[in-house]
Amino acid sequence: MGMKTLSDLLEHMMQDIYYAEKQILKTLPKMVEQADSADLRSAFEQHKSETEQQIARLERAFSAAGIPAKGVECEAIEGIIEESEELMEEAADGDVRDAAMIAAAQAVEHYEITRYGTIIAWAKELGKNEVAEILQETLDEEYATDKKLTELAESRLNRQAEQPGTQA
Amino acid sequence: MGMKTLSDLLEHMMQDIYYAEKQILKTLPKMVEQADSADLRSAFEQHKSETEQQIARLERAFSAAGIPAKGVECEAIEGIIEESEELMEEAADGDVRDAAMIAAAQAVEHYEITRYGTIIAWAKELGKNEVAEILQETLDEEYATDKKLTELAESRLNRQAEQPGTQA
Repeated sequence: MGMKTLSDLLEHMMQDIYYAEKQILKTLPKMVEQADSADLRSAFEQHKSETEQQIARLERAFSAAGIPAKGVECEAIEGIIEESEELMEEAADGDVRDAAMIAAAQAVEHYEITRYGTIIAWAKELGKNEVAEILQETLDEEYATDKKLTELAESRLNRQAEQPGTQA
Repeated sequence: MGMKTLSDLLEHMMQDIYYAEKQILKTLPKMVEQADSADLRSAFEQHKSETEQQIARLERAFSAAGIPAKGVECEAIEGIIEESEELMEEAADGDVRDAAMIAAAQAVEHYEITRYGTIIAWAKELGKNEVAEILQETLDEEYATDKKLTELAESRLNRQAEQPGTQA
């Protein structure tokens, strides 16, 4: 692979997150379909269009860095998605499935937060300020999405409190 | 697997992070050995003893929840560790390797932060307040470790700025 310099590491990490974003985009329609609460469904729909914009933004960042836009297989995101699908398939009812999907989506968000954080730090270190600026917008969105998912988890609880006995 | 209820999800997630912590504990001595900066080496040493305490805390949480302490394979942490080892092996010098190791350690921290956050929320929802309290201590430690790694990344930059030309 030849990741000898920080510049090589940056290239590899951008390709890693590019692959991850594309896998996430493939998974989101399934999550929209399976979400039980209307709020969660609309959050996943919104996240789908955000992910499309984030992919486009990464392509601009590749171009600004003078690196071809391509993905490399990312075992971490594969593992996170695989675990999520297992949990979703097994859930006995819509409420438990929503809980599993929120947890899955937050694991994805935290993976993106740490990777974009690293990419931005390395891009700045290498003087690639345009790359850092483009991707800072994405990092801000990821933090906002994670916060929103925490709020949805809380509203799930409130909804459940209003319907006692629906929890299996 | 039969994860039909929220209680099943909680059990699965505790087993997932138990497995993950044990894998992390196996990886940390390699990171101590390969760290170039003394600060990073001592941070990894400290994190090793914290991880041992976190495993013991999980065992107390399993006991409080009335669940046998066992791990289930966690593809996400396997993927994160595999990616990290690739990056570390390829790095041309100690400074680039330190950058890769800090990124790897932060990816691990974010995985732990999201999983413990979910486990604590579900434990509270199920009235397992002792489990939530025991693991809140771990979650606070994970946030502190992530912050410390960000500071180390910044000090790595300062160190490098004092030795221009060492960057490959």
